[in-house]
Amino acid sequence: MVARAREGEARAIGRLISQVEDDAPQLREVMAALAPHAGGADRADRGAHVVGLTGSPGVGKSTSTNALVAELRRRDLRVGVLAIDPSSPYSGGALLGDRIRMSEHATDPGVFIRSMAARGHLGGVSRATPQALRVLDAAGFDVVLVETVGVGQSEVEIARLADTTIVLLAPGMGDGIQAAKAGILEIGDVYVVNKADRDGADQVRRDLRSMLALAERREGAWKPPILKTVASEGTGAAEVVDAVDAHRAWAEESGELGRRRVRRARDEIEAIAMAALRERWGAVDEGGRIDELASSVIAGDADPYAAADRLLGE
Amino acid sequence: MVARAREGEARAIGRLISQVEDDAPQLREVMAALAPHAGGADRADRGAHVVGLTGSPGVGKSTSTNALVAELRRRDLRVGVLAIDPSSPYSGGALLGDRIRMSEHATDPGVFIRSMAARGHLGGVSRATPQALRVLDAAGFDVVLVETVGVGQSEVEIARLADTTIVLLAPGMGDGIQAAKAGILEIGDVYVVNKADRDGADQVRRDLRSMLALAERREGAWKPPILKTVASEGTGAAEVVDAVDAHRAWAEESGELGRRRVRRARDEIEAIAMAALRERWGAVDEGGRIDELASSVIAGDADPYAAADRLLGE
Repeated sequence: MVARAREGEARAIGRLISQVEDDAPQLREVMAALAPHAGGADRADRGAHVVGLTGSPGVGKSTSTNALVAELRRRDLRVGVLAIDPSSPYSGGALLGDRIRMSEHATDPGVFIRSMAARGHLGGVSRATPQALRVLDAAGFDVVLVETVGVGQSEVEIARLADTTIVLLAPGMGDGIQAAKAGILEIGDVYVVNKADRDGADQVRRDLRSMLALAERREGAWKPPILKTVASEGTGAAEVVDAVDAHRAWAEESGELGRRRVRRARDEIEAIAMAALRERWGAVDEGGRIDELASSVIAGDADPYAAADRLLGE
Repeated sequence: MVARAREGEARAIGRLISQVEDDAPQLREVMAALAPHAGGADRADRGAHVVGLTGSPGVGKSTSTNALVAELRRRDLRVGVLAIDPSSPYSGGALLGDRIRMSEHATDPGVFIRSMAARGHLGGVSRATPQALRVLDAAGFDVVLVETVGVGQSEVEIARLADTTIVLLAPGMGDGIQAAKAGILEIGDVYVVNKADRDGADQVRRDLRSMLALAERREGAWKPPILKTVASEGTGAAEVVDAVDAHRAWAEESGELGRRRVRRARDEIEAIAMAALRERWGAVDEGGRIDELASSVIAGDADPYAAADRLLGE
């Protein structure tokens, strides 16, 4: 299956990603088989460029993704899309699935689209997504777009694993943008004001520009551009892809790309290690060693730090 | 400071919670000093009843919190309020802070209100909140309301640490409610349709009732009531508090309260243990042992599972 995925067979890729989602027992071997093809280890470039795309509900993420995919295809690049749905810890991402079936790119063999639900557990996005990226990278995609709605901490999580992060905004979103501002100022490499044909688009751009100007940046740091698009008409998509390319070039040259990829791999290793520990802690005896410690904390016999020490001392 | 917090001095309580938020070095000793007073260990009851309150943006969480606090005060109970802001990983929760200063209860010595920002890191809510609850519990509050907007996984996190979870809905929220449904059906102990004087409230209630009827419940399981309120006028708050009391009584009798508290303590111990491991992994040598492993994963020399094994083998 790994070999077929490497040849770009969509069904094999899809099944590997399902194994990632289900945390299947054979995932270990799959990842071992993919390892030699990771991160451009066997490619002239440095592997798939991971582009995160995030924004509040209603800014036009789906249409923007479609417009970007169309532009990337025009440049003859193979594109993977992972649509992460953080609001569906239980549903398996059915809402996004519906959208994807309607996508104009659903039948293009150079495009692979997949929706993933963030699991009910903490770290859902960060645990499964890097492994899905690993599959798409080994399958030879040039660009992988990871799209998620910017609610809760999901936008921060996506930014942590992307090589380049696009933050989408739109006029007329009112409080939503205000509330989101604090977070998005720290994560965007490229800002896009979508629905630029509507009233207020220039105001959004001006507000954003003055806020970004306040942020301190080191010398030689990347200066995030603020672009305008009308994604429903494809307007501006080429400029966005150009800006992503420019950011990638800067990131390679400055070493930032390498740093981000180390961070991504580190997060992934950590998530796997922690899941393994959790399993170990829960399984020591019938109730689990950790349940016993929890009871002693509840009874006031131990504080949680002392209990954590005992857990780690095992 | 612990002694003064135990006497209910608001400033001491606030400073202890700041230490929780800042992950201060002396937090360890603070928690050790609080331990003997945990979970009602030294009280006739079983300690502060933790009530989670969640719902989509716009359902009226702040007004509902205010109405519930007023009703609880009418019953002569001391109330702590923790308002968790999951959308502000960086800001320190300034938005909620503004609201709190305007609260009618801000000057009532029987009420302690505090906003907390979920940190930029994963597990922000689940790591700091249980420790803040520990402070309020030891300070002798009868009820602690933990309020959070139901976006991302924050509602699931809050439900995991509450003794009783209230899910708020409102008519006219459109897709928001639809999208939220899958998650909220699993977490609510008490459902409240707020803004019940508006068109569509009965429809929301009917929809919810038929969806809850589909959920399988074991014999003797709690059957979540669906109440109606107009929080801005205080209408229905007494019924909500009665329902929370009824749930608490059921939870004590059935053993569910004990199970939930074990889970909460377990999550807390785990979060502390994992933070300690993270620190250890990062500090082995200058770049950190984990960075080294991450580099070998990027180079294709190891897969992330093998790297995690090596990390844990240290």
